[in-house]
Amino acid sequence: MANSKAISSAVIRRLPRYYRFLGELISSGCIRISSRELSDKMSLTASQIRQDLNCFGGFGQQGYGYNIEELHEEIGKILGLDHKTDAILIGAGNLGRAVTNHMDFDNRGFQLVGIFDQNEELVGQKIKEIEVMHTNNIESFCQTHSPLVAILCIPKTATKSISDRLIPLGIKGFWNFSHYDLLDRHPGIIVENVHMSDSLMTLSYKISQLQKEE
Amino acid sequence: MANSKAISSAVIRRLPRYYRFLGELISSGCIRISSRELSDKMSLTASQIRQDLNCFGGFGQQGYGYNIEELHEEIGKILGLDHKTDAILIGAGNLGRAVTNHMDFDNRGFQLVGIFDQNEELVGQKIKEIEVMHTNNIESFCQTHSPLVAILCIPKTATKSISDRLIPLGIKGFWNFSHYDLLDRHPGIIVENVHMSDSLMTLSYKISQLQKEE
Repeated sequence: MANSKAISSAVIRRLPRYYRFLGELISSGCIRISSRELSDKMSLTASQIRQDLNCFGGFGQQGYGYNIEELHEEIGKILGLDHKTDAILIGAGNLGRAVTNHMDFDNRGFQLVGIFDQNEELVGQKIKEIEVMHTNNIESFCQTHSPLVAILCIPKTATKSISDRLIPLGIKGFWNFSHYDLLDRHPGIIVENVHMSDSLMTLSYKISQLQKEE
Repeated sequence: MANSKAISSAVIRRLPRYYRFLGELISSGCIRISSRELSDKMSLTASQIRQDLNCFGGFGQQGYGYNIEELHEEIGKILGLDHKTDAILIGAGNLGRAVTNHMDFDNRGFQLVGIFDQNEELVGQKIKEIEVMHTNNIESFCQTHSPLVAILCIPKTATKSISDRLIPLGIKGFWNFSHYDLLDRHPGIIVENVHMSDSLMTLSYKISQLQKEE
């Protein structure tokens, strides 16, 4: 395996899609695939695919294509999906509940070990077998369980104070659904944002352009 | 206003963040801001910001900075937020409900006019005052109301057949939460994806890299 430190973020961004796609091929019974076929199905050029996969040491065999299961497993390892990182969810409202119910954490490299909310009415409710705890218990929970990642499904206004509490408790990475720009306040931490509102505005832009053209 | 057709997608991607950020400055009572101050707060270089905003004709006045309200309004117009496009939601499960309750469609260029699900138990329930209809009614509803956009909160397996039905009914754009690659099947339509699962795998990658370094 090549040293993955030098891999560009553009390649990294494409890996989950390769992983998903190869998983589907396995489900449909495929065993080998050429970079050309893969490129047709993924709307990337074959040379792009070869370049991407070469970043990790190259899995293909000239004339034989890629062994799908091997490639899927290797990309899974690169993505860190072969082990699980403990994560906690902050915010058990609509969004937090949907994220918990919707996401397959176990197959995405994480184990959800705790859910917190400041709303007394939600405390004690169960989401996917996990009982919602009060945010007052974050400190004691983190000291005992040492989760590395926090999923933030809280309003922007609450994100500053919550992140200020979580980082000294050992949280190194955030899956951030709030619109708070965590990196501005905490440079050096790991943040993966899901900015749904920005995505919706981008769609609005594209639709407006279409309407102007018509 | 400059012709916005030539604007790169990287600039477009940054516009929602400018818009959000300027909105916050307005709420906090600011009136003018220099590109230098804006760059400090947004972690972009001042020259990057000047370049971005010049794409749209340039709003700044040398030595005086930007009029925040004017800039906010202009970016809103570019993003198409000054009018509303009718949208329907397909899928009223956990995710669809969370998206409906969580998103401020009115201020993001859209009006949610219909919600559909194939689950009889959900039909008739109300989400934010909108009654869930059965997916059997999609055709008649679209013929009467002509929505332009569909929000897909349905499993990947359902997306192919639903999109095949929606496009002939006049749907031009999708806000796609499923993992189905719509553009592969329908090149030329407008798609804005929210691939939560890919985002989670990217976070897994980053956290794994960190763990290797330690």
